[in-house]
Parts: sequence; structure tokens; C-alpha cells
Amino acid sequence: MNPDILKERKSASFDVETLTNVLDGGPEKTRRRREIESMVLNDPDFQEEDPSFLSRSERYDQAVRKSAQMIQKLREYGIADPEEIYHYKKCVHPDRPEPLDLHLGMFLPTLLNQATPEQMDRYFMPAWNLEIIGTYAQTEMGHGTHLRGLETTATYDPATQEFVLNSPTISSIKWWPGGLGKTSNHAIVLAQLYTQGNCHGLHAFIVPLRDMKTHLPLPGVVVGDIGPKFGFNEVDNGYLKLENIRIPRDNMLMKFAKVAPDGTYAKPPSSKLTYGTMVFIRSMIVGESSRALSKACTIAIRYSSVRHQSEIRPGEPEPQILDYQTQQYKLFPLLATAYAFHFVGQYMRETYHRITGDINDGDFSELPELHALSAGLKAFTTWEANSAIEVCRMSCGGHGYSCSSALPDIYVQFTPTCTYEGENTVMMLQTARYLVKSYRQAKAGQQLSGIVSYLNEAQHRRVQPQPVAARPTVVDINDLASLVEVYKLRAAILVDLAAKSIQQELQRRKSQEDAWNNSAIDLVRASDAHCHYVVVKLFADKLRDISDTAVHSVMSTLALLYALHGITKNSGDFLQAGLLNVPQVLQTSVRIKELLSQLRPNAVALVDAFDHNDKKLNSVLGRYDGNVYENMFEWARRSPLNATEVHESFYKYLKPLRSKL
Amino acid sequence: MNPDILKERKSASFDVETLTNVLDGGPEKTRRRREIESMVLNDPDFQEEDPSFLSRSERYDQAVRKSAQMIQKLREYGIADPEEIYHYKKCVHPDRPEPLDLHLGMFLPTLLNQATPEQMDRYFMPAWNLEIIGTYAQTEMGHGTHLRGLETTATYDPATQEFVLNSPTISSIKWWPGGLGKTSNHAIVLAQLYTQGNCHGLHAFIVPLRDMKTHLPLPGVVVGDIGPKFGFNEVDNGYLKLENIRIPRDNMLMKFAKVAPDGTYAKPPSSKLTYGTMVFIRSMIVGESSRALSKACTIAIRYSSVRHQSEIRPGEPEPQILDYQTQQYKLFPLLATAYAFHFVGQYMRETYHRITGDINDGDFSELPELHALSAGLKAFTTWEANSAIEVCRMSCGGHGYSCSSALPDIYVQFTPTCTYEGENTVMMLQTARYLVKSYRQAKAGQQLSGIVSYLNEAQHRRVQPQPVAARPTVVDINDLASLVEVYKLRAAILVDLAAKSIQQELQRRKSQEDAWNNSAIDLVRASDAHCHYVVVKLFADKLRDISDTAVHSVMSTLALLYALHGITKNSGDFLQAGLLNVPQVLQTSVRIKELLSQLRPNAVALVDAFDHNDKKLNSVLGRYDGNVYENMFEWARRSPLNATEVHESFYKYLKPLRSKL
Repeated sequence: MNPDILKERKSASFDVETLTNVLDGGPEKTRRRREIESMVLNDPDFQEEDPSFLSRSERYDQAVRKSAQMIQKLREYGIADPEEIYHYKKCVHPDRPEPLDLHLGMFLPTLLNQATPEQMDRYFMPAWNLEIIGTYAQTEMGHGTHLRGLETTATYDPATQEFVLNSPTISSIKWWPGGLGKTSNHAIVLAQLYTQGNCHGLHAFIVPLRDMKTHLPLPGVVVGDIGPKFGFNEVDNGYLKLENIRIPRDNMLMKFAKVAPDGTYAKPPSSKLTYGTMVFIRSMIVGESSRALSKACTIAIRYSSVRHQSEIRPGEPEPQILDYQTQQYKLFPLLATAYAFHFVGQYMRETYHRITGDINDGDFSELPELHALSAGLKAFTTWEANSAIEVCRMSCGGHGYSCSSALPDIYVQFTPTCTYEGENTVMMLQTARYLVKSYRQAKAGQQLSGIVSYLNEAQHRRVQPQPVAARPTVVDINDLASLVEVYKLRAAILVDLAAKSIQQELQRRKSQEDAWNNSAIDLVRASDAHCHYVVVKLFADKLRDISDTAVHSVMSTLALLYALHGITKNSGDFLQAGLLNVPQVLQTSVRIKELLSQLRPNAVALVDAFDHNDKKLNSVLGRYDGNVYENMFEWARRSPLNATEVHESFYKYLKPLRSKL
Repeated sequence: MNPDILKERKSASFDVETLTNVLDGGPEKTRRRREIESMVLNDPDFQEEDPSFLSRSERYDQAVRKSAQMIQKLREYGIADPEEIYHYKKCVHPDRPEPLDLHLGMFLPTLLNQATPEQMDRYFMPAWNLEIIGTYAQTEMGHGTHLRGLETTATYDPATQEFVLNSPTISSIKWWPGGLGKTSNHAIVLAQLYTQGNCHGLHAFIVPLRDMKTHLPLPGVVVGDIGPKFGFNEVDNGYLKLENIRIPRDNMLMKFAKVAPDGTYAKPPSSKLTYGTMVFIRSMIVGESSRALSKACTIAIRYSSVRHQSEIRPGEPEPQILDYQTQQYKLFPLLATAYAFHFVGQYMRETYHRITGDINDGDFSELPELHALSAGLKAFTTWEANSAIEVCRMSCGGHGYSCSSALPDIYVQFTPTCTYEGENTVMMLQTARYLVKSYRQAKAGQQLSGIVSYLNEAQHRRVQPQPVAARPTVVDINDLASLVEVYKLRAAILVDLAAKSIQQELQRRKSQEDAWNNSAIDLVRASDAHCHYVVVKLFADKLRDISDTAVHSVMSTLALLYALHGITKNSGDFLQAGLLNVPQVLQTSVRIKELLSQLRPNAVALVDAFDHNDKKLNSVLGRYDGNVYENMFEWARRSPLNATEVHESFYKYLKPLRSKL
């Protein structure tokens, strides 16, 4: 063990294991998670070559191998609880996406949710046993977020009782679905349904893509890999062009909407039935934001505790770089963010599960708020984590650029969350739509409940934007409850500002739609403030559940840092609204410095508590033992370019060049 | 040509070619640049396989091939002007680093600057003719920015008149130098010089690494590639461990410092002699920030003009995504930033050349200011461009993640600029040191000149931070000169704040060094504000040189957008200092929206003016003709994973799995 990191661990004021239990949701959960992780980590079948040293085809190959083994072992061991499967999978493919993700996460669940009993009989067991490997083909080359724009057609032919599927244009080619390129032999294809001369919008169809025996593409199916990407090297994201593909009528998923043999269309009873999955996935992404950021923080903070550089005091040995105020200022607010997002993710999952019962009973009353919240928080947390991971990487100096640090991989694996499952700006605007709607309801005298209740008219009237210092400020910047309040008022004011912008546009005779678009900057800003408020509030709420005094104390410091750091980063908002005055903003900066010093002795222990196993983290810089340099040297020597002492390019180009110059 | 992008070009209010000439520095410069570019682009010897489809070893191989051809052809064509070589090189390796970068950019220049005439005789021609290929080995595994911390030793042995070089620890292994791993057979090694029992600090030594004939590493030389990185796949960044390597006395570069045969050390006449190169390279990086960002903007804005998505008005066709206010708000300020940084880069290069004469005459008086400015601006522009490139990428939705967009490559090639040639936070603190020193001089009654003259006491007294609205504000947010003024005052106030923080720490009996470290957040913030002021000022200054009315008009709009956008992003600073009041901040937001609308018809023309050739840009999304989708499909079909219809992993893992479940 590196003596520096040992010293850091001794300086912690709290028990790491207790905090890990808080994060996991109890000691028993921690125990079981570790048990599952060790099943994978000690299993020689899951040993791998470092993907950084492999070509893309080799990475895909290795991932398919491990996925196949994973499926087999999960069945063998009888691991069936979704949370346990999650832990197992996250260890087999350490936070990397894999070729079967869409089969397991979309194809099977869509069958479960949208197939008729007859369809279940026909498809489920073959899919469960991986004879059928499926994907979910929705996005097209020219169409993403806006589902109505999708162009793929499924035209019913009553003569043969078949649907004829087509990709009528280049832009209609299905593009991006994971596992579509090489892995899947079936896809659930989303297409515009045409029957009896009418279009009935998007419906889902089971389309065979490849021969079950030879795995060769079927006639009329043009399928392949979309090529190299920023990350996602393990996944064969694919394209699919359908040329007059005929499938039987009962390949349409007909649990809800139906097409009769004669082509008569019957529409689904409710459009909200597929709503829940989307909310669930976005809630999960909030948790992933925390997970990815917590890994980046673990690496950056451990490394900063063993890296020595430059000098603070002349003549003394080079200090640990974690002693530089600028380094603390870069990393500790991000550490606080990782914790904040973890608790938000916990809250979202719990809330989702709480209201799932209601949804199954047909009670959708709480869904709109959760939907709006999951959209905005998905965007808020992924954007924050995305840039934060890069700050962590760059805080490691040159070595952060080496793949041995794992930081480049964490970034490229995480960054797509800003775009998939709903592009972030679109998500922010969805949340804004809910906020503006609620705002108008409140204005119309309706009493709002839930998280938007701060928009209620009575409260609202008190918080008009007004010149700074015109209102007596009673905020205590050392009191978290007071800060939650001030974040709430900021959100209220920014929602008000956005709504007024729309109003002004309407008064200039703009249409509703143009007024909305011309206020979009303000709307995104309002959503952002709303989400920020929710995060601060949930972090503060969580403190109540923490009984251990030492852990409570350090978490309170982190929560305070999170809240105050957000204020300095957005001080214009708070000043502009008169929520804080200038001396308070100056005090905030001073207080932040104190909090950084306070957190300094606990920094390593705080990342230890995330409990990222070394093998999973796979980072030379983030090693638990802090022995960075010798292991970096060892890693480098395994670089494929070192397989020979002299690279062939010397003989081919450099040596011949001498005689030519 | 895509009709959308054609329409965009017709809507431009200015002549693109005229603006391109402004950027190049005159029509003749544009003509010659294009002439050189076409020499490369039409040369079949420089055709290449898309690097995205290659393994790392293949990428390195292709780069060596092209570098060798480049050297040969540059000599053949007699291209010798540094600017022309730059254009040629930037076309051969489109903005990618390459294996000979350090030979050409560091090894040869260091010989020129630091070798004695005898050493020149011995080394220069062999190096010029690539018999000797060299690199510059400074950074060690455990030591980067802080040169005094480097551990490699060169101990003089008068008995044999040799230096003995050693890497005494793991952390002393040379790490990162480009071209060190496989390409170079020599290195200029920076090592601590020991002679007659004393250490005389870092000196440069020419060390042979590989046999000139066989290219095999020499005895005692442990050399290799440091392994895969975030980008830089074409370069063999290397490690070097020296085990009692003996080199003759005259392998030390002795133009300045000297070791006599008996071991007597003679120190160099001035320490500032190597200062200029650093300033030059950092100035160049400012230009690279603009270059990389202008490419990302070109891609994002062209694509946004042909991509249609969602709806603004129901029932109407999907609009170009460039019509969304949020998209304009993402991209147009970045476009303005790319222009701003281009002009700053121009200014830095011109200033450097202007004072080079003085430096050669031994007059260093202007160097400290330029040194401070180049450090801070290097950090300011690379940080800004770094995050801006990612905003551009994510503004392209899913397709921004595809390597066919070129955006992932632009990012990974650019992001190291934040760390190399001086880690950005360290750079900001260097600038801060100059600012605080100047501030103290001004306080002591000295009259400052140059760019820091705003710190002069008289002016300074007027701009103490004070409650908002307590001072009458006379800023006109529509007047660029007025905004330059307000940026200047902000910088003055933040320098004052940082200096006072140091003062307060000293009053708490902290040492100078601890006071500095405890004020580092404020110091970085002051530097940032200083650089921001300089950028706004130089952009405004540049407008005076633009005679074409139409170009002047659109550049003025961009400059105004740049300045106002910076205000909204940092509104807290301006409010806190009482430089703007709340209504002005609100007006700024409104004004920005107007500017976005104003720029909308010129957006495509403004990126066209950067004149990035399609072949160099190598981006399907950024194609000049806007024909994105068909070319994306064609590109994807060339993906190596599509070489076979069925990937071998199907036979190896997926098919056998069926019988096991």
C-alpha cells in the first residue's frame, strides 16, 4: 500500500463501511452485492484481455463470448432478481454496453408488455433461450426523437394476410439499434401502419432478419454495422433497410392495437401504457450519472493523493496535488455531485416502484409529474456528469489521457446518455412544458400539489424578480434548509420569467408555437433551475435518514458544498432575483474554501465508500493501493506496439527514405 | 447540392470569399494556401484509408508512410517557408499529430538553438536527412509541469570524459514524448547535471537510443510505446529508461552552459534564452483552438441546416434544426468564439514576431507581458474550445457520436492542448502571478503600461466592488466599446479581490506561499476575467481592420454576441461588481435572442468562410454539399465489421449457446 494513501485513510473522520451501507441501502444489500461481484470477478471464464489493446472486431468478439457465458451462468446459479442481475451484468461487462443489451432490455420486455398470449407462446421461450436474438429498431437515419416523423411503412395486404415492410427512403433506414448489425436474427421494428388506405401511426412488428440456421440475412433484408463510434466499441449498432419484406399478420404485436384479417384497425385503449418504461429507463440513467461520476472521482481523488508535483512552500518536498486549493475546488464539488445524484437516483427508483402499483391499477395521476421530473433530471444529471468526468480526467494531468487511467473509457461510455432515451435539450423542454402548464394552473387559481407546489399563486406573488437588495434577505448560507428554500425561489422566478417571455411573444401576435420556440432559452433555464432545486432538496432530505453521526456530519458538509457551489456558479440568477445580496455571495466563496479544507482529510475515504472494486474500475491511477507508477509501466509494456522491438514501418518507409533525401 | 444548404448560401448578406481573405490575411495568402492544399489533396501518394477503420498499429504505419512522403516532397517542391510547411503538413495529416512531430518541431529547433557549431556540424545534416530521427524527452512518469522535480541524472565522469545517464527510480522513467516509442533513434534528454559533486539543474543531452542500422534499442536503453490513449493514435508516445548510459562529454548541448573536460561547470549567461519558444508554442495553440472549434462549428452548423426534426408548428413539415432557438443558442456563440480566437491567435503571432527582433537584440522588456498573456490565453482558449467542441458534437444528436461525423476525432485530437505545453490551471496561475505583481506595482505608485494598464491605481480606485445599483451605470449593452470597458472593469475588480484575499491570508499569519495557495481559486478567476477581457478587446479591435461593409457588419454582430453571451454566462460577476444592473442583465438576454435571429441567415456562410476543404474535414455531417444520409450509408458499409455477413463470434459463442440453455 502506498504510504500516502494509507495516511489518507487514517485521517478519515467516519467509518467507510457505514457509508457504503447507506449507499447500497443497508448492510445486507452491500453483502449480497459483493457476493455477486465476487462470483464474476473470481470466475476464470470472465477473464479478459484489456479492451484498450484489442481491435474493434476483437472487442465485439470478447463481449459476445462474455455475454453468452453470462446468460448461461445466470441460469445455472438461478440469479433472477433484477437488481442482482444488474450487479452481475455490471461486473461481467464493467459498465460497458454489450451486444445483448437490447435483446435483454428491450426485445424481451416489449414481448412481455405488448405481445398477445399466442405471440408469447410462439416467441418468448425461443427468445429466452437465445434461439431468437432480437433488438428494438425504432430510430432511423433521418429521425430520432420525433417519433411521428419515422418513415418505415408496414402496409397490410388482406389478400395474403401479410404486412409488407419497406424503407421507402435513405433517411428511413433504421440506424443505431444496438445488436442490430451482427448479433440479432430478429427485430421489433417500429413502422407506420397502413391498412385500408389509412395510416394509423407507429406500431411494433416482429421481423425476422437472419436465417435461424446460417445467420445469413434473409432476402430483402439489408443489415450491417454502422461503423466505429465514440465508444460503444463492444456493440454492433446497426442499420436495417427493408425491401418489401412480407411478414404474417400476427407478427404485429397486438396486445393493444389490432388489425383484423380483413384489415380493419382497432386502436389501443390508452396511449399511456408504454409511458412507464420510458420513465423507468430515464430514472435509471440518473443513477448511472452518479455511478460514472463516482468512478471518475474515485480515480482522480486517489491519484491526487499519491501524485506529488511542484511546490507550495519552497524547499519542501513536492506536495500531494490534492493539497492544491485549485485541485480541491475542481474535485470536491464533483464528489458532492456524485453523492447528490446517487440519492436522486435512489429517490427516482423508489418513487417509480411506489407508483407502479397505481399505474397497473390504471391510476396515472402521479405519472405526469414523475414523467416531467425524470425527463429533466435525466438531462440535468447527464449533462453535469458528462462535463464533470472530463474535469476529473484533466485533473490527472497527462496520465488522464492514457487508457490505463480508464478515464477516457468512462467518458465515451457515458456521454451517449446525453442523447439517447431522449435528447437532453428536448428533455429539458418537456419538463418546461409541465412547469409552464402547472404555472398556468396555479395562476388560474388551482392548488398545485407535489414538487411543483412552489408555483402556487400565493407563494408565487412573493417572488417576482426585482432589483437586488430591494427585498430584505433572510437567507442563512450555512443552513441547508435555507438554501433549499432559495433554490426553490430561484426556480419559481425563472419559471415565471419563461412564462412571461411566452406571454410577450403572444402579445406580439406570434402563434403559440412560435412563442414557445422564441422562449426556449428561458424555458431550458427554468427547467434547469427546477431540477437543481430538486437535487438540492433530495440531498438535504436524505440527510434525515442517516443515523450514524460521523457519516451524517460528512454528508452534511458535502450537501452544503453542493448547494453553495451551485450558488457561486449561478450567482447571477440569485443576485438578479434579489434572493442573495452581494455580501452573501462573497461569503459563499469564503465558506466554500472552508468546506474544501474540512473535506480534505475525508476525500479518499469518501471515494472508498463508493466501493468500486479494482478489477471493475480497471484504472491504474485509481488503484486502491495507490501503487500507480510501477503498474503503469507494466501496463504500457503490454501495448500491442511493443510486440516487436522494431515496427515494420521502419523497414518500409523510414530506412528507404534515407537514400532518397 | 442539398437544396436546404443551397438556400442557406443564397441568404447570406456578405461575400464569403472576402471574409476568407480576412481570415487568411489577404487574397494572396488565400490563393497560396489553397494552392498548397491542392498539391496534397490531389496527390495520390497521400490517399489514405479512413483511420477510423484501422487498428492502432495500422494507423501508426499509415502516418509514418505519409510523413516520409511529406518530407521527400517538401524538399522536392522546395517548400521552405514555415507557414507554407504548416499548411502542407496540416493537409497531409489533417490536424492529426504524427510520428515525426517532435523530430521536426523540437529536435531540430533545439539543435539550432542550443548546439555549438561543432555539434551542428556533427548532428544537423544527419537529422535533416532523417538518418538521425530525434525526439525531446523531458516529461517523466512522476513529473510534468514542475521541471525542478525531474529525476533523470547525468553524472560527469572526468576519467573517461563521459556523462553517465540514469533513470534512478520508476517515476523518473521518461514518459509521453512523441515519437519516442518506435520512431526515434536519438533523443534530446533533459537531465539533472551532476559534476564535481554538485547538481547544476536541468541540461540537455543528445542520447543515441537505437542502432542506426538495425533500429534495435542500444544496451541499457529500455524504450517502448506507452500504450493506447484518448486520441493521438498516430503517435508512438514513448517511455525511456536509461541504465548507466555513457555518452561523450560533447553530447551535452553546450551553446550556453558548459562542462569542461575536467568537469568544471560554466553556467549559461541568461535563463531567458529558451523562454521565447514556449511563448511561441503557446501562441500557436491559441490559433489551434480557433481552428479546431471552427471545424466543429462547420460540421454542426452545416448539418443543422440539412437535418429536419420534430415540429415547431403542427402540421407543417419538420423544420431545419437550425431554426430552433435552443440550437442557435448552442451554436452561434461558439461560432463567435471561433472567430474571436482566430483574431486573438493572429494578434499573438504578430506580437511574437514583432518582439522577436527585440529578443534577439537582448531586449526582453516586452517578454514578461507576452509570456503571461500567452500562458493565460492558452488556458482560456483551449478550455473554452474543448467544451465547445463537445457541445457541437452533441448538437448533432446521435450522428455526432459516429466517427463518420469526424467530431469524436476533433475532440480527442484537441483535448490534450489543455494539458500539454503547460497544464491549464498552472498557466492561469502564472498569468495571475503577473497580474498580482502588476497590481502591487500600481499600488506602489508605478505607472503600468501595456495590457495591464487598467490596474493603475487611479483607475483602480474607481472600481471597488460595491453593492449592486449603488453606482450609476452608464454601460450601453449595444455598444461594443462600452462592453470592452465593462469587461476591463470586471478584470480589475477580480484582480483586486484576489490580491485582497492574499492580503487577508497574510494577516492571518499565513506564509506568502500558503496565502497564495489559499487564494488560488480567486487568482484563477482573476486570470480568466483578464483573458476574457483581452479576447473581447482584440475582437473589437479587429473590426477596425475590416473595410468591406457587409463583412464588417456581420463580424460586428458576432463580436457583440460574443461579448453579451459572456456577460450572461458570468452575470454574477457583473452584478456583484455593480457594473451592470438587473434590467441591463435582462435586456442582455433579450438582445442575444435578437442577435441569434440576425445571424441565422448568415450561419452557413460564416462557417463556409473558414474554408475547410471537404477532404481535410473528412466529415459526412459537415460535407459542403449537404448530402449527408447517402454518404453516411456508404461510409457505414465500409465498416470492418461488415467485411463478412456473419461474424465469427456467431459460430463460436451464440450458436453453441442454444444447446446449453
